[in-house]
Amino acid sequence: MVMHDFVEIAGGFRSRVEEALKKLFTPAGILTDADIPAPLVEPLRYALLGGGKRLRPVCCLAACATVSGRSDMALPAALAIEMLHNYTLVHDDLPCMDNDLLRRGQPTVHAKYGYGEAVLVGDALQAAAFEMLFRSPVSPERICRLANVFARAAGPAGVVGGQWEDCCVTASLSKERLDYIYAHKTGDLICAALDMGVLAGGGSDAEADAFHRYGLALGTAFQIIDDLLDADDPAKAEEISILRLMGKDEALALAKQTTDDGLRALDEVRPAGSEQEAAHALLRHLAISQISRTL
Amino acid sequence: MVMHDFVEIAGGFRSRVEEALKKLFTPAGILTDADIPAPLVEPLRYALLGGGKRLRPVCCLAACATVSGRSDMALPAALAIEMLHNYTLVHDDLPCMDNDLLRRGQPTVHAKYGYGEAVLVGDALQAAAFEMLFRSPVSPERICRLANVFARAAGPAGVVGGQWEDCCVTASLSKERLDYIYAHKTGDLICAALDMGVLAGGGSDAEADAFHRYGLALGTAFQIIDDLLDADDPAKAEEISILRLMGKDEALALAKQTTDDGLRALDEVRPAGSEQEAAHALLRHLAISQISRTL
Repeated sequence: MVMHDFVEIAGGFRSRVEEALKKLFTPAGILTDADIPAPLVEPLRYALLGGGKRLRPVCCLAACATVSGRSDMALPAALAIEMLHNYTLVHDDLPCMDNDLLRRGQPTVHAKYGYGEAVLVGDALQAAAFEMLFRSPVSPERICRLANVFARAAGPAGVVGGQWEDCCVTASLSKERLDYIYAHKTGDLICAALDMGVLAGGGSDAEADAFHRYGLALGTAFQIIDDLLDADDPAKAEEISILRLMGKDEALALAKQTTDDGLRALDEVRPAGSEQEAAHALLRHLAISQISRTL
Repeated sequence: MVMHDFVEIAGGFRSRVEEALKKLFTPAGILTDADIPAPLVEPLRYALLGGGKRLRPVCCLAACATVSGRSDMALPAALAIEMLHNYTLVHDDLPCMDNDLLRRGQPTVHAKYGYGEAVLVGDALQAAAFEMLFRSPVSPERICRLANVFARAAGPAGVVGGQWEDCCVTASLSKERLDYIYAHKTGDLICAALDMGVLAGGGSDAEADAFHRYGLALGTAFQIIDDLLDADDPAKAEEISILRLMGKDEALALAKQTTDDGLRALDEVRPAGSEQEAAHALLRHLAISQISRTL
């Protein structure tokens, strides 16, 4: 079995994403259009270039590479999903939602630039994400398929539905509702990232299906582990949804079980060469390393 | 010269739009997907079916008809632009923006359903608008062209930029800034509606260009007249941007001048038959009737 340097493989994808995100703000980028008010560019940059793991675009590029696609075919989709993810963070942090003043150790967009400003920054990022997606260097037919996946994940049956159930529902938590929140608040964008990577890279329907099941499992495990890590923070422990339904050990076992299901789905995809193998191995590693965050 | 019954012509387009908007909430509609939380459907319906002139979708269908397109080709684009327009209203009404409690005599979405809820309703409508657009029964190439027009009008160089300049800038008002606000806060969606109608209907580039200039003029005249009408309301008179730069008579003269420019652009388009003539005449009438709102 080949040993992979995951730090290097992930770093390669991640630096391609970071570089391309920075390019959005150079003269040829879509976020420096002369018609954008100059003071709006600064909070857009702040929202997009403030770090983060870039998990979704890395998944998109790795899925594309696994099915032998060229990474530039999936790059606009990878950027679009990261822009969409960042808009949801800006809106989730608003005082009328989670009311968070800090993200990744820095002031949130509304804390730094104002409340109405943060609403508009999020709104702008959602539209710009779609605009980015249409720049994908694939056929118009394929762009339309990408855009359908993307719009559904972005909409009321996707990430907005997940956020609604998380923030706007006062009914007591059931396992069913928790599954919905995990699937839609976190799972949908990760699944869309993978689906679009496979689509842009020209993968088969069977591969798309396997990646989709892997993505749903990765999203769920990721969110369970996030919740468990938050449980150590007294300010956040109250909000930890899953611990209202089960103990820590049980939750961790569920995350492991879900990860195993995801890995089995991923194993249905057979990489065709060493580059494809490295991307595939990275996706395996991403799922496994979620669990080790709790160790 | 043929006499047209504009109430009837406009009513025909408008009822097609109203019917199609209602269909979004029937089993085959995109807003009744089983994955949408049931309690989210109600405020989506409230935001979309609360009346309004349907100016933008009527413009879209009329432009399509003027260039001899079948109206079903432009219908998804017409719905998409109305969904996008309604999302901007929901967000513009928020306490952190214009803080309006009433719209068309009814409670605004946040007043009725809550603050965070209204943010999410707007977010969902934007994504659903894009999803709607992709259902246009035209070629994938043409869908991509429609989507580019739409995304740009929706983004930071479009309606979000206009709202930013209107709500988030404290610098004193200049004629240049006012022109920007009119062009982007109002003009861009009207222009996009017309552009998409021409595109979906298979019009020429010269026709698209003429409609675009007509749309920019219509949007500007529409907003000037709206501002002048608001000036009679003591609660709103303070906000009337244009009256900080010129007197009422001068503003009305500017609206008339702008309308004349728009009508000249519209006259460059030559309708090919009587149905096309009726749609063309309706667009003329829409521009002229803006002015008469102040009489």
